[in-house]
Amino acid sequence: MTANRPLKATLNRIDSDLGAAMDRLLDLLRIKSISTDPAFAQECITAADWLVNDLKSIGIDAESHTTPGHPMVVGKVSGPEGSPHVLFYGHYDVQPVDPLELWDRDPFDPALEETAAGKVIRGRGSSDDKGQLMTFVEACRAWKAEHGTLPCSITFFFEGEEESGSPSLVPYMEEHRESLKADLALICDTGLFQSTTPAIITQLRGLLGEEITITGPDKDLHSGMYGGVAMNPARVLTKIIAGLHDETGRITVPGFYDGVPELSPELAAQWEALAFDHAAFLGDVDLSLPAGEQGRTPLEMIWSRPTCEVNGMISGYTGDGFKTVLPSQASAKISFRLVGTQDPLAIRDSFRAMVRDMVPADCSVVFADHGASQGAQMSTDHPGFEAARQALSDEWGMEAAFAGCGGSIPIAGHFKDIVGMDAMLIGFGKDDDQIHSPNEKYDVESYHKGIRSWARVLDALARI
Amino acid sequence: MTANRPLKATLNRIDSDLGAAMDRLLDLLRIKSISTDPAFAQECITAADWLVNDLKSIGIDAESHTTPGHPMVVGKVSGPEGSPHVLFYGHYDVQPVDPLELWDRDPFDPALEETAAGKVIRGRGSSDDKGQLMTFVEACRAWKAEHGTLPCSITFFFEGEEESGSPSLVPYMEEHRESLKADLALICDTGLFQSTTPAIITQLRGLLGEEITITGPDKDLHSGMYGGVAMNPARVLTKIIAGLHDETGRITVPGFYDGVPELSPELAAQWEALAFDHAAFLGDVDLSLPAGEQGRTPLEMIWSRPTCEVNGMISGYTGDGFKTVLPSQASAKISFRLVGTQDPLAIRDSFRAMVRDMVPADCSVVFADHGASQGAQMSTDHPGFEAARQALSDEWGMEAAFAGCGGSIPIAGHFKDIVGMDAMLIGFGKDDDQIHSPNEKYDVESYHKGIRSWARVLDALARI
Repeated sequence: MTANRPLKATLNRIDSDLGAAMDRLLDLLRIKSISTDPAFAQECITAADWLVNDLKSIGIDAESHTTPGHPMVVGKVSGPEGSPHVLFYGHYDVQPVDPLELWDRDPFDPALEETAAGKVIRGRGSSDDKGQLMTFVEACRAWKAEHGTLPCSITFFFEGEEESGSPSLVPYMEEHRESLKADLALICDTGLFQSTTPAIITQLRGLLGEEITITGPDKDLHSGMYGGVAMNPARVLTKIIAGLHDETGRITVPGFYDGVPELSPELAAQWEALAFDHAAFLGDVDLSLPAGEQGRTPLEMIWSRPTCEVNGMISGYTGDGFKTVLPSQASAKISFRLVGTQDPLAIRDSFRAMVRDMVPADCSVVFADHGASQGAQMSTDHPGFEAARQALSDEWGMEAAFAGCGGSIPIAGHFKDIVGMDAMLIGFGKDDDQIHSPNEKYDVESYHKGIRSWARVLDALARI
Repeated sequence: MTANRPLKATLNRIDSDLGAAMDRLLDLLRIKSISTDPAFAQECITAADWLVNDLKSIGIDAESHTTPGHPMVVGKVSGPEGSPHVLFYGHYDVQPVDPLELWDRDPFDPALEETAAGKVIRGRGSSDDKGQLMTFVEACRAWKAEHGTLPCSITFFFEGEEESGSPSLVPYMEEHRESLKADLALICDTGLFQSTTPAIITQLRGLLGEEITITGPDKDLHSGMYGGVAMNPARVLTKIIAGLHDETGRITVPGFYDGVPELSPELAAQWEALAFDHAAFLGDVDLSLPAGEQGRTPLEMIWSRPTCEVNGMISGYTGDGFKTVLPSQASAKISFRLVGTQDPLAIRDSFRAMVRDMVPADCSVVFADHGASQGAQMSTDHPGFEAARQALSDEWGMEAAFAGCGGSIPIAGHFKDIVGMDAMLIGFGKDDDQIHSPNEKYDVESYHKGIRSWARVLDALARI
């Protein structure tokens, strides 16, 4: 390997500038940019402006664009003639902080803390996603400071509504697809594999959200007066839900598995090599037995197999004590995680038809739609994937993985569908970061090595 | 039939005194004796004192007895030498009034209202149970006023905790069993059959209340990260509940039907003769199909067959919108109505064993006990039953029925078990009285003919 002097100089600068980089992140974390609560709308604007100013301070042309919701931040900087053009996506909004009493400190008064496992940055958004977003910005800052330029042309694209369903995102992208066009999108909103192994996420599951409400009698009844003769909608609902999985854990919705691909032998071998510790993964949440389809590995269950989960369910009296009510209604929120080319809309139709068939003649069912998105399988044909994988392996001293992610990150699909570019998801979060929960943290190691990782990835992409 | 001059005089007096009787009931209805809410404890004392004073005004020796909860009112009056001794039970406490905004008037500012179906007394407690209780008191008042004495010796026994589970009742009865001893108990807390046919309830269902909570993961999980591999407790719970009934509507708990008697041919013929309009009964609540065991009549389903109902069920996120949570817990409140000699404790054990068998190895289940009482089958051997049936038939101009009741009225069993006396349940409520709901009412017809009914029943009992 030849000595890479420009990269080495940048990495050295990152190391020596870490304290200041940390202070900048703490500044950003102090802004209460909770996107879902209208009371914090001004804070979202403040966070967007902070980022515009920070990008400008590096010498990047940046603007905040108003939307019907919170602003989009877009920054642009050109690299050397002929260098690749990447778009970097992150989000500056954060989750609400309830329940506040479970926090050990003010969620918006962030600080460095020493823990048994090392130094962490504690505060809302430290991991999801301000800390991750800033790993990329800091890498650019160091590179620019060191060399006066950046190795690639870069479009920065920061959203402020990710934690509230991104209502403005698709319209914005559709209106600005030319301006957002690049060779490759980089997304920093994921984590390390098992908190240790660097990972590029190459497949994401889609999501179909459905809510069903069964109505039996037109009012809550006395279960003494009517019990036995009146159909109980909770009985109907539980029968429907209980029938969604067969004895082998397969989902029974007709046609559900159409478009579910088998894992390629190459990927199966790679995943096997990851030696996923499912006992530890489940043990962390006090479980022990993989609950998915028989004959599938735990990693397949969470990355490459579709699921059906009850996310919520309610009927009748659920307060303290007991009421002998025979409920009028029973309802459930049910989601399906989808993979491959499973068609969310066809599955919705099939699911609803199956449910309707199970509702007795004198009960009724109403459906509500909570979104439908297909799974995403990144093509790793773009040479940037292998280059980035190598760069990450170099930084972390461990072979980086092409991994799956059980969750759904719709932006990856939007980049493909709307802008026509592939997306590479690289992130440095750890499993214990407590995102969306009290006491969120980001390891200083994640931040520091994350910044270094991006410097390496940008360098590698420029050299393809 | 020989002319019955004393009864006729009493009935005439009841008719002419109806306006004053109504005013007395309105007075009692103004007292906000909600037993379940500690804020109304003083109002319960006020209601008890009102009743003591009212009984005294008739010339009955009455007292209010303090308990750890609300007072018991006990009154005693002797009839002629050798006359039968009856105990009359009613309750002066009422249900809460929430949701208040659904009332068309202040629930504690009762009034006479003209409706399309006739005059009603509108207000909380008008039917359940102050109005019913006062039918008996007014019958005694009229008889005493007319004849200076009563046809039977009577013990009045009014409770103030019926709507909040009667915590003081059994201890009180156990302590005062000698003082409460009579030949027969009369209970006025039930209704007419299908709002038209006078009825003596001769069988009541018992009640077993169970709450089960299934825990899977030790915290709510992200359904993307864990969906598929982590067992969802809502899936476990729904499978358990869905398995509680077989395809024919029978309950699958092992041993559940032990002690369930077949209907005697005599009672079957009587019930058949009632021509129960189950289409109207179900149509009133927007249902049409009897949902109980195949091969059973709708009346059997609600009166003489045991049931299993979900009274409440909750898991995960049940607010607006959608959260992709994989819940840590799922719980349900489930009740069984019991008949014949079904043993509630044996059924509890069997149910819990069945549930435990269905819980996967890495989930856990916790049970909570919400009471267990056996069904009650009154012996109608006491000649008072047939005498009262005839008296009711005379008053209402329709053959009175020995009917069942799907609900559970534990006091009937307590009179048998603790005091050793049979209970005769006679009431005049109608199906549309909206007890426990907003706009509770009691028909003036129920009140007027109810008072007259008791005069006839007392007369009939005295003549056996």
